[in-house]
Amino acid sequence: MLLHLSTWHDVEAYLDRSRGIILPIGSTEQHGPTGLIGTDAICADAIARRVGEIADAIVAPPIQVGMALHHTAFPGSISLRPSTMILMIRDYLTSLAKAGFRKFFFINGHGGNVATLKAAFSETYAHLADIGIPESHLVHCQVSNWYMCSSVYQLAKQLYGDQEGSHATPSEVALTQYLYPESIKHTLLDEGVSRDRQIYGSIDFRRRYPDGRMGSNPALATPEHGQQFYELAVKDLTDAYLKFLAAA
Amino acid sequence: MLLHLSTWHDVEAYLDRSRGIILPIGSTEQHGPTGLIGTDAICADAIARRVGEIADAIVAPPIQVGMALHHTAFPGSISLRPSTMILMIRDYLTSLAKAGFRKFFFINGHGGNVATLKAAFSETYAHLADIGIPESHLVHCQVSNWYMCSSVYQLAKQLYGDQEGSHATPSEVALTQYLYPESIKHTLLDEGVSRDRQIYGSIDFRRRYPDGRMGSNPALATPEHGQQFYELAVKDLTDAYLKFLAAA
Amino acid sequence: MLLHLSTWHDVEAYLDRSRGIILPIGSTEQHGPTGLIGTDAICADAIARRVGEIADAIVAPPIQVGMALHHTAFPGSISLRPSTMILMIRDYLTSLAKAGFRKFFFINGHGGNVATLKAAFSETYAHLADIGIPESHLVHCQVSNWYMCSSVYQLAKQLYGDQEGSHATPSEVALTQYLYPESIKHTLLDEGVSRDRQIYGSIDFRRRYPDGRMGSNPALATPEHGQQFYELAVKDLTDAYLKFLAAA
Amino acid sequence: MLLHLSTWHDVEAYLDRSRGIILPIGSTEQHGPTGLIGTDAICADAIARRVGEIADAIVAPPIQVGMALHHTAFPGSISLRPSTMILMIRDYLTSLAKAGFRKFFFINGHGGNVATLKAAFSETYAHLADIGIPESHLVHCQVSNWYMCSSVYQLAKQLYGDQEGSHATPSEVALTQYLYPESIKHTLLDEGVSRDRQIYGSIDFRRRYPDGRMGSNPALATPEHGQQFYELAVKDLTDAYLKFLAAA
Amino acid sequence: MLLHLSTWHDVEAYLDRSRGIILPIGSTEQHGPTGLIGTDAICADAIARRVGEIADAIVAPPIQVGMALHHTAFPGSISLRPSTMILMIRDYLTSLAKAGFRKFFFINGHGGNVATLKAAFSETYAHLADIGIPESHLVHCQVSNWYMCSSVYQLAKQLYGDQEGSHATPSEVALTQYLYPESIKHTLLDEGVSRDRQIYGSIDFRRRYPDGRMGSNPALATPEHGQQFYELAVKDLTDAYLKFLAAA
Amino acid sequence: MLLHLSTWHDVEAYLDRSRGIILPIGSTEQHGPTGLIGTDAICADAIARRVGEIADAIVAPPIQVGMALHHTAFPGSISLRPSTMILMIRDYLTSLAKAGFRKFFFINGHGGNVATLKAAFSETYAHLADIGIPESHLVHCQVSNWYMCSSVYQLAKQLYGDQEGSHATPSEVALTQYLYPESIKHTLLDEGVSRDRQIYGSIDFRRRYPDGRMGSNPALATPEHGQQFYELAVKDLTDAYLKFLAAA
Repeated sequence: MLLHLSTWHDVEAYLDRSRGIILPIGSTEQHGPTGLIGTDAICADAIARRVGEIADAIVAPPIQVGMALHHTAFPGSISLRPSTMILMIRDYLTSLAKAGFRKFFFINGHGGNVATLKAAFSETYAHLADIGIPESHLVHCQVSNWYMCSSVYQLAKQLYGDQEGSHATPSEVALTQYLYPESIKHTLLDEGVSRDRQIYGSIDFRRRYPDGRMGSNPALATPEHGQQFYELAVKDLTDAYLKFLAAA
Repeated sequence: MLLHLSTWHDVEAYLDRSRGIILPIGSTEQHGPTGLIGTDAICADAIARRVGEIADAIVAPPIQVGMALHHTAFPGSISLRPSTMILMIRDYLTSLAKAGFRKFFFINGHGGNVATLKAAFSETYAHLADIGIPESHLVHCQVSNWYMCSSVYQLAKQLYGDQEGSHATPSEVALTQYLYPESIKHTLLDEGVSRDRQIYGSIDFRRRYPDGRMGSNPALATPEHGQQFYELAVKDLTDAYLKFLAAA
Repeated sequence: MLLHLSTWHDVEAYLDRSRGIILPIGSTEQHGPTGLIGTDAICADAIARRVGEIADAIVAPPIQVGMALHHTAFPGSISLRPSTMILMIRDYLTSLAKAGFRKFFFINGHGGNVATLKAAFSETYAHLADIGIPESHLVHCQVSNWYMCSSVYQLAKQLYGDQEGSHATPSEVALTQYLYPESIKHTLLDEGVSRDRQIYGSIDFRRRYPDGRMGSNPALATPEHGQQFYELAVKDLTDAYLKFLAAA
Repeated sequence: MLLHLSTWHDVEAYLDRSRGIILPIGSTEQHGPTGLIGTDAICADAIARRVGEIADAIVAPPIQVGMALHHTAFPGSISLRPSTMILMIRDYLTSLAKAGFRKFFFINGHGGNVATLKAAFSETYAHLADIGIPESHLVHCQVSNWYMCSSVYQLAKQLYGDQEGSHATPSEVALTQYLYPESIKHTLLDEGVSRDRQIYGSIDFRRRYPDGRMGSNPALATPEHGQQFYELAVKDLTDAYLKFLAAA
Repeated sequence: MLLHLSTWHDVEAYLDRSRGIILPIGSTEQHGPTGLIGTDAICADAIARRVGEIADAIVAPPIQVGMALHHTAFPGSISLRPSTMILMIRDYLTSLAKAGFRKFFFINGHGGNVATLKAAFSETYAHLADIGIPESHLVHCQVSNWYMCSSVYQLAKQLYGDQEGSHATPSEVALTQYLYPESIKHTLLDEGVSRDRQIYGSIDFRRRYPDGRMGSNPALATPEHGQQFYELAVKDLTDAYLKFLAAA
Repeated sequence: MLLHLSTWHDVEAYLDRSRGIILPIGSTEQHGPTGLIGTDAICADAIARRVGEIADAIVAPPIQVGMALHHTAFPGSISLRPSTMILMIRDYLTSLAKAGFRKFFFINGHGGNVATLKAAFSETYAHLADIGIPESHLVHCQVSNWYMCSSVYQLAKQLYGDQEGSHATPSEVALTQYLYPESIKHTLLDEGVSRDRQIYGSIDFRRRYPDGRMGSNPALATPEHGQQFYELAVKDLTDAYLKFLAAA
């Protein structure tokens, strides 16, 4: 059930049977010479929609822009500052908590969001108590990264070994290829790619990773791989969501 | 050209020929008993994509959540506070301005966004100067509401007269019906609908407009109307964008 | 009844009979070669005082500095950032709402304030609910621009036609001439004046409107006109205030 | 020279001969049973105007609302939070510093402003350096409390002894009587008045000082005293301003 | 009783007998050629610990970094902005007030903290009321500067006369010598030292006070003096704390 | 070399040979029935001091209060909100970066700090670029958790197995016992301890972990273990610091 295709009556009825909501969150940032700028939101959103169908959960519209300051030396990247993102997440969750939602399950497509999301959860728990939301102590938030699902991780390892890298990875590129086959890009990639893993500021990032990739070889990606990743992630995250929903 | 389906190389190449970008912005809020919660983002995004195609402009992913505090007494609505939204817009534009964009054209689907967007533009102009963005005085922002295009406005008047109302209007509902025919909702609407136009806080709003509509009769909407609105808005906003882009 | 010339006992007694307050708001900004920097606050304050007398309403001291970032490339202009102004307005209204005021009627002299004021109202409604002000849903805010009163607008049209322009207008200059005849300034104005209406950042503004006027010919102003504008605005805004006060 | 009655050309000419500006700052807060709510702004503004005339200094419009949170349990009081006031002062000074002002002399009428003003000065010095204002190290701010001028203080001591108290004092009431003789209020004051000096939160303040006075007997005030205070303050603060202006 | 060496059970038991807490606050800033960068925190912490022992009061860990923006042109200085420090203090006090603490006694070692601390107290009183802390009106905060205790002040006068100065004073250096005899520094100090007392921005400060001292001769300090200052401050502040605790 | 026991001349000399600084960061929070409230700061500070000695690095005074909102239902806990902590860290690093420091190595004692610290680093990189710090792209921040050093982790596993738990662990308690043998606490601990690992808001936390422990048995701790942990952590973190310092 997609929030944006529902009416408020639909949501009211949904709240009678569930207090959970799935929030896909991505980023709008460079993904190397061949990766789509929307990769992280595209992946998170597609997986979240399918999880929502299977688990009968409402799915919020994707958060398209997250914390990607380190990518902003590449054109097309858009980032919130962490301090802004904390306020944004707090506002989202406050709106939804006032309506009765209590279990917030973020399906995340971007590693750079995790720290700020977790900070935002802490900020929000305190805020909801401060403004006197009833039973605010029942508000639980969780972030699950689709690419960290153990089945996904293992498949990536098996398919790509250390060419999976850590940004603009073949696994995420494969997933976008499956979802947007008409947008598959082919470019000759530089042979050598930095094996570094450090992330600091944006200028440093571009110096360190000149074409935007971090140790990855996205040329290995195929739409068929993408479908496999999609199905594995959906399965794992459906289980994770249901477990989260059921937990005290 | 959709930003999220582009690579950073694509954006780099685009910046060689244009400094403009289109940003669709909607809201996630109740739209009466039959209107979709995502109505405003859906409309803005669809129109923006087509404008982008015609005008060869890059189109950012839609901003799905805006300033809808007054709708938050209806479940499913999500809102930023104005102070948060100002920071969010500032961060978006700062990222893009650093990359070289200078002309920001917002296609907006929600009246409640306008004041905060304008405030955000003022905040951003000053901020970009403060942080020393080169030629920051060339940064121009404009917000155009698709439902205020004169052709759109006239057609709504002609088709619906004063039953167009001012929230959950048949025109916006028609547009979503055209775009998502499978999500058309039918509910018996209350006969009497408030002719009030005042908007204050969320509790007051729900008391004043019990089913969420403001003077509108969305039962008049049809997908065919929606297509007409879409085409008119696309035409007017393409012209508006090109004029904005060309202006000193 | 002027708040600053009252005691708290006077205010306590007033609150027994009314929950309304009038807040004049202006700006401290350039008004072309002959317009006073305080024009907007002077006009708003004078009109508000008289409305308060007629309507038996308490009138707050004028807000002298508003959102005028676009004027700050001209010396003497002072502006708040929108984000600051939102906090300022929120603090004002919170103080007054705690004391029992519920109807806030802003008489505004500066177009640049409107967007930020409206954003501030939204922010404040939510804030007052969050901090648990009793019956916070009864808090209503309205901004009325004296220069947009229909009688004022028509007179300006009739007297000045399109030489009214949109900044440093003869109508507002006339009003200050009526109020401060000893401060009437005469300067030879440039013949050509930009017919542009766009407002972006401050540097751009000064480039676009080199002497600060926007399409106006303030040389047409006379103190007698000013008196007429004053009387029309007072009449219209008294009606508007009383209607606002009476409305549910 | 009053800023609000000047044009930007006047200010431009002024900046050729001086980089100093006087900013009167008061408060909008209860002043006991007979004191005017605007007392602090009224006093500061009147003195500042006269100092400006004598010293050929530009005088900004008065800041009418300051930091008076502790008075907000009395109706009619309006306060900024310190965090808001810091931003407001920073914005004022940033606007003026961009135009070339470097010496900011606050004439203050309210003890509760001092801490926040000083904090705001520190915040502003750092901010101006961060945004690259040319020669920002020449920006100097000073706050002078008119009631702390040694001549004023001595006269108050001599006229009222310990009945001067520390809020709603006869000296400040006298000054408003001199300036607004038509607004002199007479009420029978309670005999006993707290000799306490502690200030914490607003509820505590009202419990501690039930009629709003802090150890003062404003019934001793006369308009003639007020004139004396005015003249002494003007003299001392003119000297202080000129010294401040001349200092490296 | 030191908070950091207690368990939460210890604190729970303590709250049964007292609602007071002592918070030492210093700064991390240059103290001239021979003064330790941690001087202010070292002094405040040592005195606070002993006061806590005598008065059976819990003592929080020292706040090591305060408002020292004006010292930041000297390497090793660390400062919060006032706006940040207000939030920090508000967060500290909110945490403690939720647990039941009501009397907050700051022992301060740095003059530059005072204004911001006082602003933070005001901000906190209002915040605690807004979030509905029970009996928030009983929350009282006080800041006591050890170097302003009258006995301390007199001894400094007697020992050093006007060579006490106002920053990097022999009295505070003496106290650190007593506490850290192994860290006593000897450097030939410049003869002439500025008698100025003005403090503006950091660049101006370093220009005005090239070696960091303000009118002081820390070469006069001895560990024995330090012990005397310590004992006097402990005695005075113990009395002050107990009086504060007992006051309504 | 301890920053607080240095002069600014010492720091100036240090900066000639190194641009690195070690910042110990802990928390002030409950650590179960027997753990010290200052555990995290105590551990981080002690280890950092020794690392500083061995590596000839300057060590900042410990950050005593971090992000511990989830512990605040236990008395004695103090927490910053994440949004405040981001500003605090940004201010620290800005002060130090202005002085020439470029490599910031945080030795951390509290898991709850990590997300907010990482968010703060991102915020700071962007901020330093915005305010024009020279060569701000050379600013690198790293957080290393002493309890996550592989040697430490392995020893804890070996000594305590799954009784190590995840809060109020025997390893951290052992370390405080080694450092403060006079503050060793003995209490009979409840047999059963939650094996849960979830952390949400503070009320939920206390319900879930009634005595504050998370799956740990701190009764296993001994001062001798503490010494072992200390030595292992010092060794690993000295290596980590030197590697960090040397890295491009």
